[in-house]
Amino acid sequence: MDCIFCALIHDGTARWVDRGPAVCAFAPLDPLAPGHTLVVPTSHYADLFDTPPHVLADTMALAQRVARAARVALGASGVNLLSAGGPGSEQSVPHLHLHVVPRWPDDGLTTWPPGRSAHDAPDDAPERLAQALRRS
Amino acid sequence: MDCIFCALIHDGTARWVDRGPAVCAFAPLDPLAPGHTLVVPTSHYADLFDTPPHVLADTMALAQRVARAARVALGASGVNLLSAGGPGSEQSVPHLHLHVVPRWPDDGLTTWPPGRSAHDAPDDAPERLAQALRRS
Repeated sequence: MDCIFCALIHDGTARWVDRGPAVCAFAPLDPLAPGHTLVVPTSHYADLFDTPPHVLADTMALAQRVARAARVALGASGVNLLSAGGPGSEQSVPHLHLHVVPRWPDDGLTTWPPGRSAHDAPDDAPERLAQALRRS
Repeated sequence: MDCIFCALIHDGTARWVDRGPAVCAFAPLDPLAPGHTLVVPTSHYADLFDTPPHVLADTMALAQRVARAARVALGASGVNLLSAGGPGSEQSVPHLHLHVVPRWPDDGLTTWPPGRSAHDAPDDAPERLAQALRRS
């Protein structure tokens, strides 16, 4: 089993937050914050591009339940959702995962990227996206 | 109309990527990257905590379509999804929004938070979350 998340789901040796037939949630090895949780489809999908919409819906629904649990169980005031998909995106494990990162006013964390993309692209990117969406 | 995203949706003066009865997508005023898009429910929900799961599903489905359009129309290799919800999360506008940020290997951007939360919390946070989820 090449995927480390599939191996984890199969072997069961994680700090589980939830385990279900469609989606699972567990603590990462190197959490950014108390209660930082990875929410993943139980079946293997590489990233956002490859995941069926109903599986994305289940993943997002569990992320919401984890976020609410972080308020109830840990007193978090908010959360961040972070995810990376595809080459060049800093995706660490090619099995779709949503990071749910609990936040507190005193946490000193910042999750907003400090830089700007240096990729050169046409000025009409939004209009090109709109056109591609209409064709999709 | 106090919410600036509701005003935008109502007035129509944005660089639109998609407009639908359930979800909309438009370019932010200060994009992190070419094609950076905000995907939002058309109706007002403050954040992840307050949004009905079926609306979250629709929002995520449009985020996926925008991500795919970024590959097709802009040649992006990947994307990041970023979202903030609730106090202390760095949420800029209290109307749920998913940032879809196109990525390229040459973009010089990093979206992974460099720091760690300084919030003091019990070591058994994952187990507390699990317990709260079982009760939810």
